[in-house]
Amino acid sequence: MCSHPNESISIELQQLQLDADDTTGRNQRTQWLMNSPEPPSFCNELINSVTETVLPQKNNLFSSNSKQCRAGVFSFLQGLFPILSWGRNYKANMFKHDLLSGLTLASLCIPQSIGYANLANLDPQYGLYTSVVPPLIYAVMGSSRELAIGPVAVVSLLLSAMITDIVDPAVDPTAYTSLVFTVTFFAGTFQAAFGLLRLGFLVDFLSHAAIVGFMGGAAIVIGLQQLKGLIGITHFTNKTDVVSVLKAVFRSFHDEALSPMNFILGCSFLIFILVTRFIGKRNKKLFWLPAIAPLVSVIVSTLMVYLTKADQHGVKIVKHFKGGLNPSSVHQLQFNGPHLGEVAKIGLICALVALTEAIAVGRSFASMKGYHLDGNKEMVAMGFMNIVGSLTSCYTATGSFSRTAVNFSAGCESVVSNIVMAITVFISLELLTKLLYYTPLAILASVILSALPGLIDINEAYHIWKVDKMDFVVCIGAFFGVLFVSVEIGLLVAVGISFARIILDPIRASTEVQGRLPGTTDTFCDITQYPGATRTSGILIIRINSGSLCFANATSIRERVLKLVTHTNGSEENTKENVHFLVLDVSNIMSMDTSGIVMLEELHRELVLQSIQLTIANPRLRVINKMKTAKCFDKLGKGWIFLTIGDAVDACSSLKLSDPSSTNC
Amino acid sequence: MCSHPNESISIELQQLQLDADDTTGRNQRTQWLMNSPEPPSFCNELINSVTETVLPQKNNLFSSNSKQCRAGVFSFLQGLFPILSWGRNYKANMFKHDLLSGLTLASLCIPQSIGYANLANLDPQYGLYTSVVPPLIYAVMGSSRELAIGPVAVVSLLLSAMITDIVDPAVDPTAYTSLVFTVTFFAGTFQAAFGLLRLGFLVDFLSHAAIVGFMGGAAIVIGLQQLKGLIGITHFTNKTDVVSVLKAVFRSFHDEALSPMNFILGCSFLIFILVTRFIGKRNKKLFWLPAIAPLVSVIVSTLMVYLTKADQHGVKIVKHFKGGLNPSSVHQLQFNGPHLGEVAKIGLICALVALTEAIAVGRSFASMKGYHLDGNKEMVAMGFMNIVGSLTSCYTATGSFSRTAVNFSAGCESVVSNIVMAITVFISLELLTKLLYYTPLAILASVILSALPGLIDINEAYHIWKVDKMDFVVCIGAFFGVLFVSVEIGLLVAVGISFARIILDPIRASTEVQGRLPGTTDTFCDITQYPGATRTSGILIIRINSGSLCFANATSIRERVLKLVTHTNGSEENTKENVHFLVLDVSNIMSMDTSGIVMLEELHRELVLQSIQLTIANPRLRVINKMKTAKCFDKLGKGWIFLTIGDAVDACSSLKLSDPSSTNC
Repeated sequence: MCSHPNESISIELQQLQLDADDTTGRNQRTQWLMNSPEPPSFCNELINSVTETVLPQKNNLFSSNSKQCRAGVFSFLQGLFPILSWGRNYKANMFKHDLLSGLTLASLCIPQSIGYANLANLDPQYGLYTSVVPPLIYAVMGSSRELAIGPVAVVSLLLSAMITDIVDPAVDPTAYTSLVFTVTFFAGTFQAAFGLLRLGFLVDFLSHAAIVGFMGGAAIVIGLQQLKGLIGITHFTNKTDVVSVLKAVFRSFHDEALSPMNFILGCSFLIFILVTRFIGKRNKKLFWLPAIAPLVSVIVSTLMVYLTKADQHGVKIVKHFKGGLNPSSVHQLQFNGPHLGEVAKIGLICALVALTEAIAVGRSFASMKGYHLDGNKEMVAMGFMNIVGSLTSCYTATGSFSRTAVNFSAGCESVVSNIVMAITVFISLELLTKLLYYTPLAILASVILSALPGLIDINEAYHIWKVDKMDFVVCIGAFFGVLFVSVEIGLLVAVGISFARIILDPIRASTEVQGRLPGTTDTFCDITQYPGATRTSGILIIRINSGSLCFANATSIRERVLKLVTHTNGSEENTKENVHFLVLDVSNIMSMDTSGIVMLEELHRELVLQSIQLTIANPRLRVINKMKTAKCFDKLGKGWIFLTIGDAVDACSSLKLSDPSSTNC
Repeated sequence: MCSHPNESISIELQQLQLDADDTTGRNQRTQWLMNSPEPPSFCNELINSVTETVLPQKNNLFSSNSKQCRAGVFSFLQGLFPILSWGRNYKANMFKHDLLSGLTLASLCIPQSIGYANLANLDPQYGLYTSVVPPLIYAVMGSSRELAIGPVAVVSLLLSAMITDIVDPAVDPTAYTSLVFTVTFFAGTFQAAFGLLRLGFLVDFLSHAAIVGFMGGAAIVIGLQQLKGLIGITHFTNKTDVVSVLKAVFRSFHDEALSPMNFILGCSFLIFILVTRFIGKRNKKLFWLPAIAPLVSVIVSTLMVYLTKADQHGVKIVKHFKGGLNPSSVHQLQFNGPHLGEVAKIGLICALVALTEAIAVGRSFASMKGYHLDGNKEMVAMGFMNIVGSLTSCYTATGSFSRTAVNFSAGCESVVSNIVMAITVFISLELLTKLLYYTPLAILASVILSALPGLIDINEAYHIWKVDKMDFVVCIGAFFGVLFVSVEIGLLVAVGISFARIILDPIRASTEVQGRLPGTTDTFCDITQYPGATRTSGILIIRINSGSLCFANATSIRERVLKLVTHTNGSEENTKENVHFLVLDVSNIMSMDTSGIVMLEELHRELVLQSIQLTIANPRLRVINKMKTAKCFDKLGKGWIFLTIGDAVDACSSLKLSDPSSTNC
């Protein structure tokens, strides 16, 4: 290569100059690294962390300027009552759409509300009450435009399954109803508190996979509960798991004189509803047909029973029904009973499940229309609507999946459709009272049954299986937990597996050897992912694949690193060059505890015994601050920390070259 | 800039050539990224994951060649019995050191063993038995050279505190002793099983901070238990928490006629032991003085009691003592009692605590002498030593901190010092039987008390406070849990806080804006950490600071990213250039679930509505494989994924330049 002496010297000088530039640049970058901003004090960090969770947006409420202040108050009120902002732009032709979708919604809502009240072991009027007050409150405070508020199947099941353990509704219906209102009050309080404390992330604890599994299991359990009404069983079980319910059904076949009329009536109207749904799916213009089919079924079947007096021939009917406006239920709330803790727990579970369903449904429709739903604001709205509901004889309401879909396809423009629905339900409470007395229970069962297939999403379960096996375990865990044990256990299993997975992640931390990508100067990549990446001889670059270097993985990472060093020294016999430098890329590590620092110091000590220099590349702000606090650099050597892997490798290479044993031109 | 038309054209052509080169290189790198190795099938992944945990080293046991096979068997045996490898190099002058340190060890071990047996509510000979068999087994199977095996304070406390809840030793000493052996058997079985299944990482669940807090709390609790012997109380409490113990002590001052002789005897010898320790610390050559001081105290005080017949004047003595070789205890193991589950649980806790202490102590001394201790092998050795121990009247043994330190400073060379100690203890069991009958209980209390200060490490607790506040919470949680509730609750609190912290890490995931470092072409860094980094106008580079993108943080990360986009568009009014490209650096993300994928798709959809292109930089192997499986690229657009941030920024910039609205030369 040394063709001409002068040329060679000039090149060498140039090279030296470049090297010097390199070194200066490198040193400067290391300086930047070492002089990164000081860490905030412990108190500041704590306050920041809390503030960030609780108040991510700083609003101008406490501004000094009085005009700004007034604007701040108004924007705060607008945030709390979104009706103030959209109400000013509301136009007549929007109301046309809302009126139509509100009426469609009401016709679906009336039979469903009665059915869900029945599922929740309550008298049917409570379902209708729940479709009056909460939608009105939500219309003022909520920000979703499509969400249809009212009782839903899963929450009704949860309430009946858990409160029945405390008080049997067959024995003491008044105490049971009081407990339901108290639970609703607690649920609303929890929801409002979560929203005000900006704990919206709590809803995320039920992952997508868990919801799919839980909904599927709950749908089957709810379907099985409908066997009671569909067959006309008198003595049913209070448990919800498959085994108990099937046992109860078989027992009733033996013990009770069942009238086949219930079954025939229920099934024929179920077929009618399913056929209308099929027609509605084929012809999108007839979307209203499946929506009004349940109400038509209720009216027709009730008239049939009333005219033929079938209730005297074994057909079970609703019987208990009280019309009129929602009565006050303030005096029914119990805050000093022996079951207060239990009731609060049920309230918490209902609050979370209700929020999860409403926010999941609301978000998916909001993202279709291209607007964003603030989880925390929704929580406050839901919370207030349930608190007010619990004072006006309503049980826990939330956003219903099936009715929201109907609302959407009916072309609703705003939450006004909820107001229309609430008024319609209220009018029917006044007018239909007499009629609903004769409604056969089998029809209510078939109305609920017809709504269930939408809750079972086999395609999504298959997609989850394909994409992420562990998520599928969560999904199937929730499904079988609900099916074979109980609703709470199903939820607990799903949340438990999800969190076990989060814990396992750092424990299973791995390491990967990095190499330089061909054609680049300082892009270093995993040599497994990019087989083309080449290793620099004498320098081993290892990246720690974990977000935190903590007690749970420090030892295993140290052992993996040392094994990689031994392995590299063993396999590189042909090149006859042992590892002299270990570059540890810690760019992934976001947090480190004392065990992590002890591990780095131990690793350094063990590498020194093998005469290998430990070099650290790209520590993050938190890591470098922690290392500074722990006086880690005094032990590791201050010069051995670099901003990039490239800098570290250059520094190691230049040190190797300056070694007298290296060859020269 | 366009000084000369020809020059300018040539520069432009060069530029174009360079751009073309850039583009080719970039495309090639993206190709590498997209063609990264296929993911292993689910079954393979599962098997690999299990294999990696259970068998990190593939040994050649099942090799085809018969010679290799024999060598493999021998190396396997060497792995199981390290004595086979070091025994061949053992030399006479090494034995000289081992003999000396073994004798020193025995002189400390005899009084400590009796004291710890007393703490465990067992007859004193069981402590000595435990110092005979387990050290011999460990000498054959263990790989630490310094670890002194025998009974230790914390495990003795654990045993007595937890088994006393099942059977009161004052009421039925035989049943109590049987339970202790059964617990020891379970502990040994668990330890061996953990080692064989290579679950060494279980020991790491007790973090360094938890151990510091737990040991400190346990030391105080043990010290308080010694008040019984030191004051000579007859009716003491079975509980270990500070409040109960102090209550019992004050009650005894009222109710019992306490002889001050016990207290005077105990305190004077405690002072003697502490003085010798002080001398030993000042003059390193006199290391043997504090080591033999306890034995000297026992012998002198016993002779004093024997000669003055002080036991008839209120001085409490050991009394029950049975000499001779360890009797068999096979018939005492109970596997069919009603408490089997409880006993297995205690065994598990003891197994983990014993392993944690032994491995922590063993590792710290091994790293001083520069060799490595394999946690899994140690677990197998400890497991077998406790199983054999439980069959030969020993209770749970492990590596003692205080005696290991004495062994080390006495200059031990190998585990032979343990053999010397075991033989010495065995001889003393034969000879000292008569003598030990008259040993005053107060002396045993002072021997234990003198060993406790080593367990309380205030300096380390202060260091933990300085480096990591959360670790300090773990430490103090364990400390107060042990002190005021019970030993198990203390452990549970520490482990619980540690895991809560692991769970909180991904939930608190943050995002950071990256900028180009001055003087570099494609080094992009956090602009908070490196205030000199500059942002490229029109391109927002965001890095996700989390090891996993999962259900727990997907929503919050999406909201943070969208907020950053809004904020940047708001603040960049002076440049009048809105964000057109969002580069999402996902290099930190090691794992992703279905919620993460849904989040990326939703983010893309919401950015499209703001006419911003989402670009993904540097996805890891697992992430890109998951995105491929979920067919994520079909939705995000295949061309918008790059290997480095630099590539992504270049691609975005060139697209912006080719825009007709841009200015040209």
